[in-house]
Formats: sequence, C-alpha cells, structure tokens
Amino acid sequence: MLDPLAPDRVALAEIALRIDADGTIAERAEAGSAAYAALSADAHALHLDPADLLLPGLTDLHIHAPQWPQRGAALDRPLAQWLAAHTFPLEQRYADLAYAESVYGELVPALLAQGTTTALYFATLHEPASLALARTCLAHGQRGFVGLVAMDHPELCPPQYRHPDAAAAIAATRRFIDAVRALPGNAAGLVQPVITPRFIPACTDALLAGLARLAAETGVRVQTHASESDWEHAHVLARCGCTDTEALDRFGLLRRHAVLAHGNFLDVQDLARIAAREAAVAHCPISNAFFADSVLPVRALLDRGVNCGLGTDIAGGFSPSIFENARAAVLSARMLASGTDPGRAPAARGAGAAMRLAFTEALWLATRGGAQALGLSTGQLAPGTPFDAIELSGRGPVLRLDGPAEAVAQRIVCHASAAEIGRVWVAGTCVKA
Amino acid sequence: MLDPLAPDRVALAEIALRIDADGTIAERAEAGSAAYAALSADAHALHLDPADLLLPGLTDLHIHAPQWPQRGAALDRPLAQWLAAHTFPLEQRYADLAYAESVYGELVPALLAQGTTTALYFATLHEPASLALARTCLAHGQRGFVGLVAMDHPELCPPQYRHPDAAAAIAATRRFIDAVRALPGNAAGLVQPVITPRFIPACTDALLAGLARLAAETGVRVQTHASESDWEHAHVLARCGCTDTEALDRFGLLRRHAVLAHGNFLDVQDLARIAAREAAVAHCPISNAFFADSVLPVRALLDRGVNCGLGTDIAGGFSPSIFENARAAVLSARMLASGTDPGRAPAARGAGAAMRLAFTEALWLATRGGAQALGLSTGQLAPGTPFDAIELSGRGPVLRLDGPAEAVAQRIVCHASAAEIGRVWVAGTCVKA
Ligand SMILES: [Zn+2]
Ligand SMILES: [Zn+2]
Repeated sequence: MLDPLAPDRVALAEIALRIDADGTIAERAEAGSAAYAALSADAHALHLDPADLLLPGLTDLHIHAPQWPQRGAALDRPLAQWLAAHTFPLEQRYADLAYAESVYGELVPALLAQGTTTALYFATLHEPASLALARTCLAHGQRGFVGLVAMDHPELCPPQYRHPDAAAAIAATRRFIDAVRALPGNAAGLVQPVITPRFIPACTDALLAGLARLAAETGVRVQTHASESDWEHAHVLARCGCTDTEALDRFGLLRRHAVLAHGNFLDVQDLARIAAREAAVAHCPISNAFFADSVLPVRALLDRGVNCGLGTDIAGGFSPSIFENARAAVLSARMLASGTDPGRAPAARGAGAAMRLAFTEALWLATRGGAQALGLSTGQLAPGTPFDAIELSGRGPVLRLDGPAEAVAQRIVCHASAAEIGRVWVAGTCVKA
Repeated sequence: MLDPLAPDRVALAEIALRIDADGTIAERAEAGSAAYAALSADAHALHLDPADLLLPGLTDLHIHAPQWPQRGAALDRPLAQWLAAHTFPLEQRYADLAYAESVYGELVPALLAQGTTTALYFATLHEPASLALARTCLAHGQRGFVGLVAMDHPELCPPQYRHPDAAAAIAATRRFIDAVRALPGNAAGLVQPVITPRFIPACTDALLAGLARLAAETGVRVQTHASESDWEHAHVLARCGCTDTEALDRFGLLRRHAVLAHGNFLDVQDLARIAAREAAVAHCPISNAFFADSVLPVRALLDRGVNCGLGTDIAGGFSPSIFENARAAVLSARMLASGTDPGRAPAARGAGAAMRLAFTEALWLATRGGAQALGLSTGQLAPGTPFDAIELSGRGPVLRLDGPAEAVAQRIVCHASAAEIGRVWVAGTCVKA
C-alpha cells in the first residue's frame, strides 16, 4: 500500500489487513512479521494481486451533484451567463424527484468508479431530491455529506430559484437534517447532512445568522463558497466591510470542519482564522481556471496548517476525477510559481518557486487532506479507522507502480484514472468490484 | 463523425465511408443521400455503433520516444538536473538495441491506444535504436516521423552523449534518412525520417548549417526545440545575437513543415517568420508548466496563421494523451488570460481574455492542426485523404456525445481518454481493435 503520512512524506508498505464486521481496520501487519504471515494465510483477510497497490480512498471536498448532466458544458461562458442560462435552470429541474433519482443514480456509482469514497455534496433547494441524493449514497455505499442548498437573497438569486425568506430556508434545512439522520440504513451515520448557504452573495444576513444558530444547536457541519473570484471577493468586501472568512466567522459559520470552497482570495488573516477555527478549504483547481481569475496558493495553506483537500466542483470543473484534479493542482501551482505571461520579466510574471506543490502533497490532499478537513479518520489505512480504500492496477500501459514511494506517488498523480482503479471499499464494504 | 473544419468551426455529420484498398477515403456520403443508403448496405463499408462517434486521428507533434520509461518521473527536478541525472543517462541506454526494441515495442501500441495515429518523434543519437523505432511504427501501422537526434556541442552536451563533431552527426543523419526510406514495407512512406538538431544550445554552428544543407538536398522535414524557457531564449540571444527562430532561419533550418517545439518566447517577428516559411509550432502545455517558465500564447499563433499542433513532450510532460494535452491547452490559456497570482490586481495579473483558447480550437489543434503542421492531408475525413481515424464511445459513465457539434467538441476535450477509444485506423488499416 501507499501511505500518505504527511503532505511531504509518503511510504510504501507491504501489508496485510483484517477488517472487522463493522468495516473498521482491526489489524494491520507489515510484511516479514508473524502477524503478516498469519493474516496472509487467512482466507478472510484482504488479498491483493502483487501488481496492484492499495491506496486510501479519495475525498471530493466540493461537488454540485445536480450539475452532473452539465459536466464539460458551457465552460466558455462568463460566470453570470453560466449561472443564469445553464446552471440555475438545470438545478430547478430537481423539483422533479424522478429526474433527481435518475441523475443521482448515475452520479454516485460514477464517482465510486473514480475512487471517490467520500464526497461533500451541494444538492439543490429541493428537499425530496436532496434526500434522494442521501438515499443514493446509502444505497451505493458511498460516504456522503449532503447539503440542501440555502439561498434567499431577493436581488442575487433568480426569483424562481430561491427560498422565499430566511425562515423558510432555515426550516427546510432543519427538516433535511432530521430526515437524513433518520434515513433507514443510516444508523452508522455513513451519510450526513451539511448546512449549506450557497455563498454570502446569495444569502441574507438573517439566513446566514440563522444557519449558524442551527449549526451550533445540531452540531452539523457547514459548507459554502468563499473568496472565489475578483467579483465575489469585492462584493463581500462592499456588503460586509470585511472578507468572506471574517464575515462567516462573525455570523458563526466558520466552525470546526466547515468547508470553504475555492478561497483563492484569502489573505493571511483569513488563513490564520480558518486554521484557528479548524475549518478547511476545498481546492478546485480545474474550476478555478474558468471562474476564479487566479490560482489558489495552496502551498501557503499547507505552510500555515490550514486544513485542505481537493474538489472537482462539478460542473464549474469538468473532471469527476480527484486524480485529475490532483494533477491540475500541481500544474496550476507551477503556473502560479512561474507566472504565465512570457511578455513579462520573470519577477513580474510569477509568485516564486516557493508556491510549487509537490506531487506527494497533491496526493496527500486527495486522500488524507480531504478526509481530515471533514474530521474523518479515513484517508489513511490505520488500525481503528474505517476501511475506505481503492485498488490501483499497474498492469495497464501507462501507470507504473514500481520504485520508491515518492516516485510511485508522482506517477499516481500523473497517470491514475478510473481505468486503473480495481475494487473500491467504503467502511469495509466493496462498493465497486 | 465530428469534423474539425477550422479552429473555430466544427460540424457533426452522419456519414458512411468507403475506403480504398490503399487506405484512402474513396467516398464519403452524408445521411439522407442515395449514396449513403447504398454505402450503409455495403458490408465492405465502415459501420459504427450509433453510440460511437468517428473523429480524425490525433497527431502528437512532439514526443521523445526514449523517455517513455521516465513518464511521470523526476518532474519536480530543475531542468539541468532533470537532463543530467535522469534524461541523458536514460537516452544513453539506447546504445543497447534490445532495450530500445523492448521500450519502443511498448510505446507505439500505447500511443495508438491513446488515439495518436501520427507521431513526430525525437529518438536518440543511436542509429540502430532509432531505426528500430521506425520499424516499430511500421510494424504497428502508426504514421511515424522519426528523428535521429543530432547534438555535438562540446560544452553543452555531456561528453558521453554527443556526436564527436558536426561531420559525424551529419553523416549519421544522412545514413539514417537512407535507412528509413529503404525499410522493407515502407514503400508507401508511412514512416519518414526527420532531421533533428536537438536545440541550438546543443549544436555547433557547423552542425546546424550542415543539417540545413542536408534538408535542402533531401527534402526531409526538420524538427527542433525553440524559445522554450527564459534560460534557453537568453542563451540563444547571447550566442547568436538574435532569437531562435531568426537563427534557425539564417542557418536554413526554418523550412516548410519544420516543427519547433514549445516556442513560448517567440515574438511577433518570429511568428511572422514562421508563418512566412510555413513552418509550425508544437504546443506542449503540460511540459511547459514544468520547464518553460510561462504559457505559450497559442491564440496569438492562431490569429497570425501560424501552423500549430499539440505535443505530449513525453517525458517533460507526463501524459501520453493528446486529449489530456488539449484540456491542458485550454486550462493554461485561461491561466495566461486571467493570470494566476491573486496578490496582484487583475490588470497586472493576466494577459487578457483575448488569450483564451476555445474548446473547438483545442480539438482542431489535436487533429487537423497537427496534421497540417506536418503537411499531411489527414486530421479530417475528406475524400482523397488517408483514412486515419478513431472511434469514440459514448457508452461510458463520463463522456457524452449527444447535442450540438460545439457541445460535443467541448465534452470530447474535457473528458475523452484512452478508455473511450474503440477502434483506431491508420491509412485504412485497423491498428487497434
Ligand atoms: Zn461550487
Ligand atoms: Zn522536447
């Protein structure tokens, strides 16, 4: 297996595992030990083909489930048109439960096939459809964090796609929390509700404050978008007199394991605040190329101990693969470091080589980073933690899995895709054969 | 099929094709015509599953065949170390013909599986190994342009990996041209030799001038690297007193269908010179993120009528997929347009929205653009041209092939990979089932 021990440290180990009936790793034995020999002979232990490698499951820390039909579409449009002419009309279709069930029934297995064992979802405003997403995660065995979207701002939301007022959005969120927690088959909490104000511009102060109270009361996680683009950053500065992060903190939404999507324009005070609150950032490098006007300096987050993982941001990003987003994180960090415009002198072009992201760091974000952001013990294969893992094959023509740990990590980030993924497990259950 | 008609124009057509015995498209009939009905009933015509789409084959306009074992490795190293400690020692191994045959025997089918029907290769300095690459292309039916690398500069090449002098390199290139042309089974010229000075820094003036004379004498195509990075651009300015392009032109190497890899630091005079000479640029966006300090303004090339295609630059780039490089071309052009550093004001950050590359343009570069750069009539499915094509499947969970032509082009660029490629044909022969 490949162990993402820390952002800058990765190890290869030949291990045998015994998984408990409840899906927890009960025993992990290293090759050469007596325990390994015993486990290797045990028909009930996990057996891998020697050409395969076990990797902790991937976490998609930011994905809009209803936008799945729009993947790879309309990305050449300006944001306002992308939202008004494409994204919001698509999301409105989820008033139709049957449509929701059909899309979500495609999406969840498609993500499992990409190795995404945990996903933090934005759903829509529709309670039945959003509950259908939670049920679909349960049915397919994916660790799902599902947010009923809350948005009520009369000027910045389309009239036909918003909650009538803050109270209605808060009541809907409360019902959704209860409904997800009460889902049949969810006693172990594989699927969790998430309090989900879309982003500050789409929410009134009353909604933001009310959702913060609900989070404090219920202990439910929070997710939103923050400091994504020049427009959004400036809008919040003008409306709130401070950055997104400070505003969210004042409202009481910057809680432990709250996930802020994007965060490209976070300043050093924002980073310190996020670290202090044990909140997190979902880095969505592909989406950022289209809608964020810049690259998130993800190395600065790691240097300051800010929790961080990777998000596909389907459909602002086109790829459902966290591996492909890990590649994009490395590439975009290189372009942040060097800059992009050959017409400028090097010093006026880039932010400097310290902004580069190492391949091991990208792999850590894809696995342990994303899980840690949500407060999960997954993203590693340690005794006492749930067995969420994927099997990678080195038998194809492109991905090689031989060599030292750092080299293997680099090749996984460069080359892994759904084509190289064999079995996938969540909480000890094989969810993709 | 999808027709990349022009960089900004793409069309969908339901067609039937009849292919000649020599692999040329003899007849193309559009749905609804009598010819279509007749062809559709003909068991010898080409038949596609309705869920599949035919696309012209992809051209990889810049790839280092011997670096295949190094794909996805050592990309975190500085260029000098990447060359000295990894790349040159690897290339030296091709003195061993058996090693070359084993690597090339893996590489060529792997590229065909990625839809690369035409590849413009840098091989190594070794004549038997480079000839083995040409033979391997022939054996697997790939349209291969193969360059024996020429490098003789006593200061800028490693002593153990360079030609002893210009005369030796020129004589070797001449022998290689004759040997490729005389290969059994190559009467139709499926595989062509290419005159390949590595780049100006690695070559003496005598070598550059001598290879230009050889190109004029034999009519053989030329390839080299040009204006890739701050270091390389400045080195040539200092040595030659002019840019790479002007220097190549003075030596006589900037010929029709000459391919310059990278070209990030080309100025407007360089672009005009390349267009006037009908030479071309191979854009390698993934590699550029590691070694070029900047993004090629590929839109500026298209605007000025400079021939251009896409290259993987294995192993400076990690991906053997021209589709993945097309995605990277779109993403890096967005990052050139917007800039990357959120710490700068927008105007000081990016080169402006005019630098964006459309998805249709990226698909055109991948298909027709690359073929046109080499002076081929492939990269389109027109009567009288060789049938080089790939079959894309829309039955998988990610790539959708329904909708208008521009939307399909966008989804192909966003999502296509080897996993969606069915059959592949070169010159009418099915080279991948
Ligand atoms: Zn989002
Ligand atoms: Zn190269």
